Amino acid sequence: MENLRWIQGGVTAAKGFVAAGIAAGIKRSRKPDLALVAVAHPAAAAAVFTTNRVQAAPVLISRARIRRGCAQAVLINSGCANCLTGPVGMRDALRLGRATAKALRIVERDVLLASTGLIGRRLPVARVERAVPRLIAQLGPAGHAEAARAILTTDRRAKEAAVEAVIGGRACRVGGMAKGAGMIAPSMATMLCVLTTDAAAPARWLGGLLREAAEETFNRLSVDGDMSTNDTVFLLAGGGSGVAVRPGTAGARTFARMVTAVAGRLARLMAEDAEGGSRVMEVEVVGGRTEQEAQACARRIAGSLLVKTMLAGGDPNVGRIAAAAGSSGARFDPQALEVHIGPQRVVARGAALPLGAAVARRLVSRPAVTVRVHLHAGRGAGRMLTCDLTEEYVRINARYHT
Amino acid sequence: MENLRWIQGGVTAAKGFVAAGIAAGIKRSRKPDLALVAVAHPAAAAAVFTTNRVQAAPVLISRARIRRGCAQAVLINSGCANCLTGPVGMRDALRLGRATAKALRIVERDVLLASTGLIGRRLPVARVERAVPRLIAQLGPAGHAEAARAILTTDRRAKEAAVEAVIGGRACRVGGMAKGAGMIAPSMATMLCVLTTDAAAPARWLGGLLREAAEETFNRLSVDGDMSTNDTVFLLAGGGSGVAVRPGTAGARTFARMVTAVAGRLARLMAEDAEGGSRVMEVEVVGGRTEQEAQACARRIAGSLLVKTMLAGGDPNVGRIAAAAGSSGARFDPQALEVHIGPQRVVARGAALPLGAAVARRLVSRPAVTVRVHLHAGRGAGRMLTCDLTEEYVRINARYHT
Repeated sequence: MENLRWIQGGVTAAKGFVAAGIAAGIKRSRKPDLALVAVAHPAAAAAVFTTNRVQAAPVLISRARIRRGCAQAVLINSGCANCLTGPVGMRDALRLGRATAKALRIVERDVLLASTGLIGRRLPVARVERAVPRLIAQLGPAGHAEAARAILTTDRRAKEAAVEAVIGGRACRVGGMAKGAGMIAPSMATMLCVLTTDAAAPARWLGGLLREAAEETFNRLSVDGDMSTNDTVFLLAGGGSGVAVRPGTAGARTFARMVTAVAGRLARLMAEDAEGGSRVMEVEVVGGRTEQEAQACARRIAGSLLVKTMLAGGDPNVGRIAAAAGSSGARFDPQALEVHIGPQRVVARGAALPLGAAVARRLVSRPAVTVRVHLHAGRGAGRMLTCDLTEEYVRINARYHT
Repeated sequence: MENLRWIQGGVTAAKGFVAAGIAAGIKRSRKPDLALVAVAHPAAAAAVFTTNRVQAAPVLISRARIRRGCAQAVLINSGCANCLTGPVGMRDALRLGRATAKALRIVERDVLLASTGLIGRRLPVARVERAVPRLIAQLGPAGHAEAARAILTTDRRAKEAAVEAVIGGRACRVGGMAKGAGMIAPSMATMLCVLTTDAAAPARWLGGLLREAAEETFNRLSVDGDMSTNDTVFLLAGGGSGVAVRPGTAGARTFARMVTAVAGRLARLMAEDAEGGSRVMEVEVVGGRTEQEAQACARRIAGSLLVKTMLAGGDPNVGRIAAAAGSSGARFDPQALEVHIGPQRVVARGAALPLGAAVARRLVSRPAVTVRVHLHAGRGAGRMLTCDLTEEYVRINARYHT
C-alpha cells in the first residue's frame, strides 16, 4: 500500500462528484433521509446487488439500468426499503428517478436508485418528490458528509473513506460512503455503499473489480447472519482526474488496491458500528484443506451466536470456538486443532489449555479481538470480521417498529 | 395417533427400566448432575450422534460401543462436557464407564456414556467415581424424575414424556427424557435424550427408525443455530412387555409413531424451555419446488436473528420473514409470495398487507406463534420449531462462566 494516502472528502473526494443530503420527511424522526450523488457527465458505472430472491423495487430498477455501464446520479433514501410493496413500489421508485432526472436535466436511465429501512411499507412518494429540487439545490463537493448521514438507519455514525494515489504520474482518487449496522452477512446484507472515482476505466472491468473487492471486504463481514433485500454497492468512474486506468497494467493493480482499501475501511466501520456491538472480532482460519473450507470455518465461527455472546460477556469459552469450527463442514483432525485468542494459545492438539481467569478475561475484553484457528489440514486460509452479540442488539431489533 | 396414550413415568415408563439421579459434585451449585438408566438384561440399542467434527470423549466411546447393537446402562453427567480434553478426557470417561459396569456387574462395553456442560474442562473424575455406588443404590422405577433433573444444564424444567399403545394385543411403552435449552440447531445441538421401550426389536431396524424420528423432531428445532460437540440420542429396547415388533408390520408402524411422538414431545418441551425464550414459533413452508427447498426455507426463517428478535419484541415485521425466505436458496417468484401469521394473511402476491398496529401486535404476542409461508412454486413442504431471541438469551450466554 506504499503509495495510497488516506484523505478526507468521502464520496465527493473524487474530482467532479457532488453530493447532498436532506430530511425529506420519510423518517418520523425528521433526521436526514434523502441523499444524492451526481457527476457532470455520464460516468462508467458498475454495481453489486443482494442475492436475496426478494428484492426491493430500487434494486430491480438499478440492476436493469446498470447493464448499460453508465450512470450520472444515485438517489438514495433511508427510512423505507420500498420492498414487498408490489407494483406500486415500482411505480414510486420510477417516479422519484424521473423527478431526479428532470431536475438534473439528465437521462432518466442514468439515475440509479437505492432504498434502505423498513420493509413492507410504501414510500411517502409525493413528499419525497417535492423534496427533490431542494436536495438538488444543496448539491456540492462539500455535501459528502450530509449525504453520508442521510443514508443511515440504525447506524450510530456516518461512514466515509477516501484514498489518493498516483497512477501514470497523475493523482487520482477513490472515495465512498456506506451505511450498515445490522443484518450484514453472507452477502452484504442491509448495506448500501456508493464508491466514486475520478479515474476513467471500462465499465465491464470495473464490474469484475468491484465484485472482487466486495468479496474481500463486505462479504467477509457478519453481524447477524441475515441477508437483506436491498444491498447495493455502486461504483462510478467519472474520469475527472484525467487518469485512464488500463486493465492489466501496474496502474490497474494500484487502482484495484484503492477500491479494495476504501471498501475495506467502510466494512471495518460497519463492524465497529454494528447494532448493539461493543467490540469487533477478527476471525482468521489457517491450515484448511482448501480456501473454501477455511473461509467456511471462519464464517461459521464469526456467525456463531454462542461465540458472539461469549465476546459480549468478555469471557473466553474456547469450547464454543472449537464447536463452531467442528460444525463448519471444514475437514480437519480434531486432535490437531489449535486456537489462539490474540497472542495467547488457548487450544493445542485438540485440548483446551488451562488459563487463569484474569488472563482469560483480559483476552476477550479488548475493543478488538483476534481469534486465530489452525486446522492443520492444508494451506487454505479464510478471514471474517464480526462483532459481539449484546443485549442491546436484541433491544434494538425487538423494538425496530413496524 | 388413535391408539397412543400419553402416560407418566418418563424414561422408566417402559417395564424393566430403572433410573436414578444424584448430585455428584460436578456442578458447583450442588444440583443433581449424574444420572443412570439401566435395565436387567442387555437391550437392543441404537443411537444418533452429533455430526460436529469436534466430538466429546463420551460420544467417541458410545459411538464405538453402540455398533454392537446392545447396551444395558447409560451414564450421563451434566456440568462438564468432557470435550476438548484430549487423551486424558478419554481416560476419564472410560474410567467412569468401568466403575459403573463393575458396580452393576455388567459388561463394560454395555455401558453407554454421555456428558453435557462446559467444553474444555476436565471432569472431577475421582469424585464422580466415588459417587457411582451411591447413584446405583438409588436406582429404581421411580428414579426417572431425578434422572431427568440430573441431566439438565441451563434448562429451567426437566423434560419427560411417555406413551403406551397396544401392539399385537399387548400393551407396550416408549418413554424418555431429554435436556437441551440452547445451541440447538441444524443437527440436534447440545441436546441429550434417552428413549427406552419395553418392546423388543432388532437393533439395526431401531437405528433407522431413530434416525427418521430425530430428523422429524430434534433436527427441526432451532434455538440459536449452533451445533454441539455432545449431542446424543439413545434408544434402548428391553423387551419387558413381551411385545416383539416385526419390521414391515402394522405393529412396526405403531411403534415408529410411538417413538416419533415421544421425541416430538421432548423437542417441543425444549423449544418451550429454550434459553431466554419467551415464546415458541412454528414455521411451516408450503409450495416449495422440492421438499429440500421448503425445508431450507423453513430453517432459514426459524434461524433468522431478525425474525427471532421480532418475535421477542412482539411486533410483526413481515419484511424480515420475506427477506429470510428470499435468502434461503429456495427458488420462488417473489411476486407470488404469501405469508400468514396465525390466521392472518400478512403478505399477498409479494406485497405486505396493511395491518392495524393492534392487530399486528396481537399476532405475534401469543405464547405460540405460527408463521406459514407459501412459495407457490411446487408441492414441497417443510417445518421448523424455534423460539424468540431475547435479551435474556444474551444475558445467560454472555455469563455462562469459563
